[in-house]
Order: sequence, then structure tokens, then C-alpha cells
Amino acid sequence: MKRSVSEDTIAAIATPSGVGAISVIRVSGEESFAAVDSIFQGKVKLVEAESHTIHYGKIVELEGGMIDDVLISVFRNPHSYTGEDSVEISTHGNPFIAKKILELLVHKNVRLAEAGEFTKRAFLNNKLDLAQAEAVADVISSRTEASLHGARNQLDGLLSQKVEELRSMLVNASSFVELELDFAEEDLEFIGHDELLGRIDKISKEIEKLLETYSFGRVIRDGINVALVGSPNVGKSSLLNYILKEYRAIVSSIPGTTRDVIREDVSIDGILFRLYDTAGIRVSEDEIEKEGVLRSREVVKNSDVVLFINDVEQGVSKELKDELLSISKKDKILTVLNKIDIAQNQVKDADICISAKTGEGIETLFKELKETALGTSSYSEKSAIVSNLRHYNCLKKANESLGNARESANNKLSGEFIAVDLRNAADNLGEIIGKVTSDDILNNIFTKFCIGK
Amino acid sequence: MKRSVSEDTIAAIATPSGVGAISVIRVSGEESFAAVDSIFQGKVKLVEAESHTIHYGKIVELEGGMIDDVLISVFRNPHSYTGEDSVEISTHGNPFIAKKILELLVHKNVRLAEAGEFTKRAFLNNKLDLAQAEAVADVISSRTEASLHGARNQLDGLLSQKVEELRSMLVNASSFVELELDFAEEDLEFIGHDELLGRIDKISKEIEKLLETYSFGRVIRDGINVALVGSPNVGKSSLLNYILKEYRAIVSSIPGTTRDVIREDVSIDGILFRLYDTAGIRVSEDEIEKEGVLRSREVVKNSDVVLFINDVEQGVSKELKDELLSISKKDKILTVLNKIDIAQNQVKDADICISAKTGEGIETLFKELKETALGTSSYSEKSAIVSNLRHYNCLKKANESLGNARESANNKLSGEFIAVDLRNAADNLGEIIGKVTSDDILNNIFTKFCIGK
Repeated sequence: MKRSVSEDTIAAIATPSGVGAISVIRVSGEESFAAVDSIFQGKVKLVEAESHTIHYGKIVELEGGMIDDVLISVFRNPHSYTGEDSVEISTHGNPFIAKKILELLVHKNVRLAEAGEFTKRAFLNNKLDLAQAEAVADVISSRTEASLHGARNQLDGLLSQKVEELRSMLVNASSFVELELDFAEEDLEFIGHDELLGRIDKISKEIEKLLETYSFGRVIRDGINVALVGSPNVGKSSLLNYILKEYRAIVSSIPGTTRDVIREDVSIDGILFRLYDTAGIRVSEDEIEKEGVLRSREVVKNSDVVLFINDVEQGVSKELKDELLSISKKDKILTVLNKIDIAQNQVKDADICISAKTGEGIETLFKELKETALGTSSYSEKSAIVSNLRHYNCLKKANESLGNARESANNKLSGEFIAVDLRNAADNLGEIIGKVTSDDILNNIFTKFCIGK
Repeated sequence: MKRSVSEDTIAAIATPSGVGAISVIRVSGEESFAAVDSIFQGKVKLVEAESHTIHYGKIVELEGGMIDDVLISVFRNPHSYTGEDSVEISTHGNPFIAKKILELLVHKNVRLAEAGEFTKRAFLNNKLDLAQAEAVADVISSRTEASLHGARNQLDGLLSQKVEELRSMLVNASSFVELELDFAEEDLEFIGHDELLGRIDKISKEIEKLLETYSFGRVIRDGINVALVGSPNVGKSSLLNYILKEYRAIVSSIPGTTRDVIREDVSIDGILFRLYDTAGIRVSEDEIEKEGVLRSREVVKNSDVVLFINDVEQGVSKELKDELLSISKKDKILTVLNKIDIAQNQVKDADICISAKTGEGIETLFKELKETALGTSSYSEKSAIVSNLRHYNCLKKANESLGNARESANNKLSGEFIAVDLRNAADNLGEIIGKVTSDDILNNIFTKFCIGK
């Protein structure tokens, strides 16, 4: 099925901006070969070149001046990323050269590509389904092993296959119900009442299993949000410094949304931890502090784990703990005693003891953080994982529709009601993989891509 | 002639760093195909693939996990950039993925490439001569039409051809002289005295012509350095602002080397102008100002043109003009009267009148700037231009050696002296194109390249 035919030929710089050894310009669409041929001087004409071959030559200006010597890769429809005739021009890695070549192409009626337009065309030409297309953006932005594996898993179609399987089962069940409606006067039964309820339950359970993977999928995709909370001088900053120094593999400091909350990202064992250093969460009378407290409390509320840090000598702060429990769930709070290098304390009210000075206990701390955030779920290469909020919402809607169908069936309502709910559920699933879609959904997805992808 | 054989296989990320649609990893050396085959799963083995073909497949981790699906370009020795067997791996544009793949290659005994090592190998394998190799870096860093054309001109070998032609003439002339030395006892004359002098003069004149292109070549390569000088309130800042607003095509503000000198780059008509806003050049007693004045005077001294700006109502500042003439040559100073929108002045002591407010005269100003800096020279696609200081110095040394040879010939000294000087001149020219070279020269050139080129 060809979902749509794109009329125009598009081009964009596909490599990151800046200076390097190589820049690549991507061209896709019916006129790709002709357009590039008109500015290219090589041994062969690209229109005559075979797919998946590379050709050396020169890009020349309209007045005949040479811009650069290039390597051109030829991809013939449908054996290209977009499914259309495509060309990749590999130039010296100078943004000025790439821009000049783009300008020449625009003169040859090639249009500058919009964000994500190549992948959108790949979707429209059935090279990828929608969930896979979304995974392309995730693959590009992955910063850890876990997020990359999760995105690859989705790009390779594991989620799509599962969703398509459930959708087929729904379409099949609703067909039977609809068939009964067509033959209502003859009073034929194509699917038994118990059989139908059985199928609905089975599909619903599968959807619930997928929904359950979301907390895990979201975390491996976006990282674990950790709020650091503690009284002054318990060693929050020393802990942050120790972590950033020891695990600097992928570390960056991201300016917080406010002057009071600072975020530091660190990747440990392939998982991204986003550490939010909060200023204070206890309500203050000071007008200036008030705003900071509000923001810190917001961070605590939205975090996956709260790291509640205390000084081993002072023990666990009762007031702060109560305050924390009023904002966050108990099982999200990890109570930590710091400074065990200067004193040992056998208090039983902490989950873990550490020294931000010597590093003792910090490895265990991250193990606990991971377990608290991820639970016992573990990543498997073989099973579908939901990591995208859009997919999660579609699955939830599908399950609600299924619930309605089950209720109608239980209440012995007319098959019409059941059929509509089953169709709705199928459509909700179809939205995930793009069997059912709208311009709004597509625009919303692809405009978040980078130009050139 | 194979200058050297590289034993090991190297790899580097060739695209600019950062996130994009595509990243390219470049691999070159004898083991390229085998090394990439060991982490690649595709339809064909790369060792069996034809040159200039593209292959889709997956890069897999040692434990079998998949890293990314990629397109692999195969280039067989000698038909590659380096002249060696080479592979380009095109991945999703995620630095994390590219880094993972590089790590896998390092496990397969591929070494991370040093800066410029691919181009160095291209040179060592006779794909490029040294002047062309240097031009690769210039092509990549060009920011204007003129600098790009100049670098392309050099990469295309125009300078190299000219230099090689002169070098051959020198080698030929010195051969005759040496032949005479071999047959000294027979008193044979292989080249007449006047003929020899004639040849020396001819070559010397050609070298001088090349040397003359340097002021032009340097400027189109590096841009025209313009110092802005003027008393307070004559409108220097307004002029800068007007220029930056009107010609913002390629504009950037570069922090000066000092807090007192600010540099703004602007490209007009394909030429890069580097505008240095100087604080003041008149010697001051104030200790803090003193340092700034010293630096401003340094900028004036090193600039190609001095833009001496005055207020039309106050006329040209006599003191400042005298001061300028004490630092800079008269023909480098362009005297400007600003604010002609508020008053007309028929003074004859200015070169040009402008209004930084309305923009009147500013186009003419840049024409004058260009003429003052470039003289009447104009760029030609067809002739060799010297734009590199190393080449300039080699040419100067060659000409000095020729001068010595001429003197020896005039003084009827033994042919031995003449032959040595002619050989020296030939070697000086050979250094430009890398016929004569040393590890020091090569390292000095290639370490300035980017990694991956």
C-alpha cells in the first residue's frame, strides 16, 4: 500500500552543523537524479547509474565555477531510506560549501526539506510504520546503552509487531460481531458470547502487560529523575561532586529551569540518572526563598526517586522526613546517611550509609536508586517495551474501549455497541503504528525531528 | 612512486561532532574490510564487495547486541581518498553510536586516526601533493567565495603545476652544470654561460611573479584586516552596527585578544573583512589605558587597511593623523568623513564621505577598502596563487638561492657553486609540493587538520 505520493524533490544537510572532514547533503524525490546531474560533472550520469553505487565528480556553479569535488551515492526507488529515488552528496566538511550546494539545488527546483521530512516520506512510502519512525528520533537522541537499546528495539519493530498482532485480533473479533449483525434476522451466531468475552479479556491482558512496561520504558528512554533533598551541610554538594568526578563518562550540567534547581546528568551502567539538586523544601516565610521552595517541591513531586540525605552524626531529620512524606510516596524515598567516614552510627531508620568523601556505599546507592525506579523489571532484547507517552495513551484508550465492549457484552447489549467499541480499540492501536492517522499527529511527530532526517 | 607504506588501519568520525541525521565513520588501511566485516552483518562480505558500492546491514556488538543499522561504502585501493582500502560507515547521527562503533573497531585492532592522518596517507600514497594536501584544510575552513575559490584553485593543482614546472627547469639547468663538472677535464660546454644566466633570470622572474600574488592570496584566504581608528564620538560604533546589520550574511563577533580590541567578521562580495574596533592610539598617561593603547597600535600596525574615521563637522583630526602616519604607511590609510547626513563639508583632505546613519557611501567605502588591500590584482580561475606563508617562504628561499647562483655565474666561479645553488633552489620549490620533505614539516602541516580528514 502506497499511502501517499510526494510530488516534490527535497534536500537538506544531513550531517551535524559545524566544520568537519565530511558533510553530507541528502536529496530525495522523483527529480533527485536529474537535479543533481544538472550541477554535477562526473564520468556517468546519475540518471543512468545503478542503485547503491558511488560516483566521484565535481559540483559546478551555474556559471561554470567549481564548488567542490564530491562523492555521490545513488539510491534507486524503492531501495532507499525514503523509498524514493535518493542521492547523498558527500562534500568537504565546510558548512559554506554545503550551503552553496543547497542553493544550487534550490535553483534546480529542489525544495529545502522540513524537519523530519525524509523519515515522514519513509513512513508514507511504507518503509517504516509510525512507531518505528518515532524510534528513529529516539535512536538519534539516545545518550546511554539502555536508551539506545530501547529505541533500537522499537525501531526494529518489536512494539509494532505486538501492537499489530493485538489489532488483528480485535479486527477479527469485531468482524464476527458485525457479521452477526448482518444476519441478525436469521439469528445466526458466528462467535459465542463466552468466546467473545474470552477474546476481549485476553487482548486486554496483553495491553495491560504492555502498559506495565511503560514505567520501565520511560525511564530507560528519558533517564531516572532523582531529587536530592537534605538539610544544609549534610554533604549534598560533596556527594554530587564525587559522583560527577567518578562517573564522568557521559556527564553534563544542564541549567535548571530555575536558579534554585540545578540538574546534573550522569550515566551509570548504561542508565541515565538526572540528579536535581534542590535548595530546600520546607515552607519559609522569606518571600525570596518561597519561590525556590515551591520549585524544589515540584521537583520532588515529579522525581522517580527522592534521595533524602542526612548527616550520620545528626541522624535522620524528622521534620524533613515528615515534609517529604507529605509531598512524595514513601516507597519513592531513599533515606541516606552520609559522612560514615567520620562516624559510625547503627541507626536503623536509614536505607543506606555512604561517605561522599571516600566513596564508600555509593555504588550500592546507585544500585538501590535503579531498583527503586525500575522495580524488578529488566530489559529484554526480545520483548516489546512502551517508552513513548503517545503510545501509552493510545494503549490506555484501547483498553478503555475494550472495557466498554466487555460491559456491553456482559449486559447483553446489542452487538452494534460491542462492534463499535472493538473497532475503537482497534483504531486506538492502529494510531500507534500509523494505520490510523491524521496530519496533526504526523506534524506533531515529525516537526520534532532534526532537519535532514 | 609509493612514498611509504602504512602498516596499520585507522578510523575516525569524519562528520562534525554533535547530533544530526547522519554520522560517518571513516576507516582506512589494509585491514579495513576485514575489521569492519567482523562487526558487520549484511548480505555480502565487504572483502568481496566491489569498489564504490554501498551495502546495508547491521553493526553488532561483540556479545551479539545490535548497535545500529548502517550503510557501508566500499572503496578499493587505489581508488579511495587515501589510496588504501577504505570504508565509510554511515550511521544514525548520534555521537554515542559513532563512539560505540569506534570502540568496537579498536577492539579489532584498528587504531584511532590522528589529526589529518587520512590526508597524510593520501599524500604519502601520491593521491595529492603537499600543497594540495594543505589546500584540503583551506577548503574546509573557507568562509567566503573568494577563499573557497582560492583553496580550490590550489587543491586542483594550479600552484603545484607551476612550481613543478619551475623545479624541472631548475633540475634541468643544474644537470647541465653538473655534467660539465663531470667532464671538467675535457673542458666540454653543455650549457652556455649566457644561456644559463638567461634561464636563471627567467625562473627567477616567474618566482617573483608568484611571490607577488601572495599579498592577494593571503587576503582572499584569511580576509582583509581593517583597523577602525577615530576620536570618541565620530561614529565608529554606529558604522560597525550599520555594517553588521546590513551585511549579516556571514557575520560573527570574535572576542578580541584583549579587552580593548573587538573583532567583527563580515563577508562582502565574497571577501572576508575582519574589522578591528580599536580603543585609542594616542599615548596616554593613565596606566590602565596605556596597555589598551599599545594593543590598538599593534592592531593598526598589522592591519591591511586603516579606516581613519572623522566627524564631518569637526573635520579630520590632525593629531590623530600624525599619530597614524607614525605607525602605518600612508597608502594603507583611508580617511573617512562620517555624519554627512547632518552636514555637508567640502574638505579635500578625506578619501571618502559616508553616513553611518543612512548608509550613504558605505558601499563605496568597501570598494575602496578592497582596492586598498588588494591593489589592482584580480582573481583568475586559471592562474596559480600563493596564499600560504610556508609556500611564500619556500619561494623566497628559492629566489635567494637563484640570486646566489646568478652571482656565482657572473663572477665566473666554479660550476660546483652554481650547481649547489641551483639544487638548493630546486629543493626549496620541492618542499612546497612535498618532493623534498621531513617528518617535522609533515607533522607541522597535518596536526593542524581536524580528526577524520
